[in-house]
Amino acid sequence: MAIDEETAPLAKRAAAEALGTALLLATVIGSGIMGERLSGGNVAIALLANTIATGAALVALITTLGSVSGAHFNPAVSIAAASQGGLAWRAVPVYVAAQVAGAFAGVMTAHVMFGEPLLSASRHVRSGMPQLVSEFVATFGLLAVIWGCSRRQPNAVPIAVGAYITAAYWFTASTSFANPAVTLARAASDTFAGIRPADVPGFIAAQLLGATAATVFFAWLVPVEWERSP
Amino acid sequence: MAIDEETAPLAKRAAAEALGTALLLATVIGSGIMGERLSGGNVAIALLANTIATGAALVALITTLGSVSGAHFNPAVSIAAASQGGLAWRAVPVYVAAQVAGAFAGVMTAHVMFGEPLLSASRHVRSGMPQLVSEFVATFGLLAVIWGCSRRQPNAVPIAVGAYITAAYWFTASTSFANPAVTLARAASDTFAGIRPADVPGFIAAQLLGATAATVFFAWLVPVEWERSP
Amino acid sequence: MAIDEETAPLAKRAAAEALGTALLLATVIGSGIMGERLSGGNVAIALLANTIATGAALVALITTLGSVSGAHFNPAVSIAAASQGGLAWRAVPVYVAAQVAGAFAGVMTAHVMFGEPLLSASRHVRSGMPQLVSEFVATFGLLAVIWGCSRRQPNAVPIAVGAYITAAYWFTASTSFANPAVTLARAASDTFAGIRPADVPGFIAAQLLGATAATVFFAWLVPVEWERSP
Amino acid sequence: MAIDEETAPLAKRAAAEALGTALLLATVIGSGIMGERLSGGNVAIALLANTIATGAALVALITTLGSVSGAHFNPAVSIAAASQGGLAWRAVPVYVAAQVAGAFAGVMTAHVMFGEPLLSASRHVRSGMPQLVSEFVATFGLLAVIWGCSRRQPNAVPIAVGAYITAAYWFTASTSFANPAVTLARAASDTFAGIRPADVPGFIAAQLLGATAATVFFAWLVPVEWERSP
Repeated sequence: MAIDEETAPLAKRAAAEALGTALLLATVIGSGIMGERLSGGNVAIALLANTIATGAALVALITTLGSVSGAHFNPAVSIAAASQGGLAWRAVPVYVAAQVAGAFAGVMTAHVMFGEPLLSASRHVRSGMPQLVSEFVATFGLLAVIWGCSRRQPNAVPIAVGAYITAAYWFTASTSFANPAVTLARAASDTFAGIRPADVPGFIAAQLLGATAATVFFAWLVPVEWERSP
Repeated sequence: MAIDEETAPLAKRAAAEALGTALLLATVIGSGIMGERLSGGNVAIALLANTIATGAALVALITTLGSVSGAHFNPAVSIAAASQGGLAWRAVPVYVAAQVAGAFAGVMTAHVMFGEPLLSASRHVRSGMPQLVSEFVATFGLLAVIWGCSRRQPNAVPIAVGAYITAAYWFTASTSFANPAVTLARAASDTFAGIRPADVPGFIAAQLLGATAATVFFAWLVPVEWERSP
Repeated sequence: MAIDEETAPLAKRAAAEALGTALLLATVIGSGIMGERLSGGNVAIALLANTIATGAALVALITTLGSVSGAHFNPAVSIAAASQGGLAWRAVPVYVAAQVAGAFAGVMTAHVMFGEPLLSASRHVRSGMPQLVSEFVATFGLLAVIWGCSRRQPNAVPIAVGAYITAAYWFTASTSFANPAVTLARAASDTFAGIRPADVPGFIAAQLLGATAATVFFAWLVPVEWERSP
Repeated sequence: MAIDEETAPLAKRAAAEALGTALLLATVIGSGIMGERLSGGNVAIALLANTIATGAALVALITTLGSVSGAHFNPAVSIAAASQGGLAWRAVPVYVAAQVAGAFAGVMTAHVMFGEPLLSASRHVRSGMPQLVSEFVATFGLLAVIWGCSRRQPNAVPIAVGAYITAAYWFTASTSFANPAVTLARAASDTFAGIRPADVPGFIAAQLLGATAATVFFAWLVPVEWERSP
């Protein structure tokens, strides 16, 4: 996850974050629409298609863009990385802005591809304590996977993150948003994968708490010093 | 599977076993509930979701925590490892306690996320000789995969174990528990993935027999000495 | 993606492109027929089978033939490679001819296996702006994955491309043809995966535009010079 | 695929072939029974479960046993390997006997796990030219993948073969038996994955022809000499 700041100038890294987050959102929204349209009312089949598409997209996108920007695609990941010295704090606002802009661009791209209005406020209610606990657990787990893998086996990150999200779509009651930029943009899609704008702040708060908990826990469990010694 | 005892102190290894087993159980129970709720009565679709989530979670969790504790998440694996010199016998009770505690924590986490009672005795009957043979075969196969891979290609263990369990969910009549800690904790969930407490002892006995048989067989087939020579 | 022209003579590379494209088309068409016949009218299940088969075939075929010809199986990829110095321009017509011939051979092979007429014009309408935008996005994404991975982690290309297409089947409204040779050949199959001949030119134009855009963007984002330095 | 005959004595290699083929058949038959019982008559869902289980089992089993015996699990592969110098001819009868014995043991294991009679002649008709062409294509493709990968990237064989068979279950009309030992043993199971004994000879003949064609073609396309030079 640590990016050599010499490797790629910030503009290229921001472009990579925007592109990756855009394609991620296009996948989440687009495959949700396609799954719902084709599945004849069986929500499990729609969610299975949504899951397989999203997990596979993460494998492809993290492999493609990881060496440019770290392939965060997620403000919670960028902030956590900065807190551990893996990203300069001054780069964080650029990363987050690129992620949010990319996320909305991805939603609009999906809507154009499926003939939906460019943006539309979601009416998909996702509220209540089980949903908030789900987002805490989902983001805790995501950051655990990122910290555990990136310090010891960085080449395994794309498969591990794609596999984790594949599982988390099904083991959390919220289908695991686990990403503030994704959450904001999904509020602008009145489709299968949407979330009512009123439910967004709770989701983001739970996500940031989960990311913080995992970062603190893994700073103890797998300290960065271990990485450098062997 | 052999853990360098210098690498991580026992407290960290126990924490990794507890966390990994908790997330594994949250996946098994949570994706079972989600699959059953959404699949409109088609059990094959519910089990397919349960399978894909569990296999993917194993890939992510073993990659994440393997370098800390060996990522056993399974008392049968820890005991087998100790019998072959891959884990100190004095660490076994710590590993097993962490796995069982983590497993129950994972079940409770899933129940909170899905608005179920914290713990509830399962009424899912899983008895009879075919079920016991299934658990023997499932655990024999799991240990075969672990011994075959960990001695020659340790980096392939996460994918191989995740793939094996994906298959074993479908090729055994019991959906392949193959893990005493998982079996105990699933008895405390009256949901899709549960098991009636009365059926637990038979399952665990069959699992320990299967693990022993595979360990003896692979001690002959792929002796540890081979690993050291090249 | 850069092929050492000393490694394999052009005849062998053409044979590899023809074989790979033939097996790819046999998979796309054959699994489409099988999925439609067995799924009892649930199009989502048919498309899920079609998706999983195609993604898996790409992983297998690119791994198998990548070291011979680069495993393009796609005129848009071969042209893009030539534009960046990864393939001699004089080899391009040979590659494209082999891909198109292989694609039709694959369609005929699938038709024989499923007892369909050898070739038949498709009546599957795929027209309108959303479809064209979908093909632009699909091919942009495919080339992005290829350029991002092949310059930094060539061994990850088979998994990344297979995963990308798995996602793109669901996140684009066109199910992501993203390949002019594939598009031409699918016009000759009046089955699940077909496309009406009248819709082919628009698809191919959108694909070439998408490939060009991605190639220009990645020439800036991940210049080839980076690859050589470390 | 080339086995260092010093590495493992023939008895161990035979045991590995028997065990691997047994677990492969247990997966094919067992997941077929489970899929059919749970899918409520939707054959596509049953076949999807059967496919995912079989592909995943191949990944796990080839990774586990590849370094012992080469993980052929298939007489067509062992004979092809011998024809190219990758296996001593005198080992072939031992390999084939172990594979066939293992295959029947696997069928019986699956039947015990699912409470079916130990062995029973299948009544599943699989005849006609499309079925024979399917087996020729399926086995040609399987050997192509094995030859293409094993000479250049042996570590990729488990994923490539598992992915290939995942695709071939759907792109061939026969669901891709592609293996004489598997074909013989599936004739002894009157369940989802069975084949009528009268249809076995045609299947095996088509498989051997397909394997021969691929072996001849790849001896030209990717000669063994290439492997040794770099």
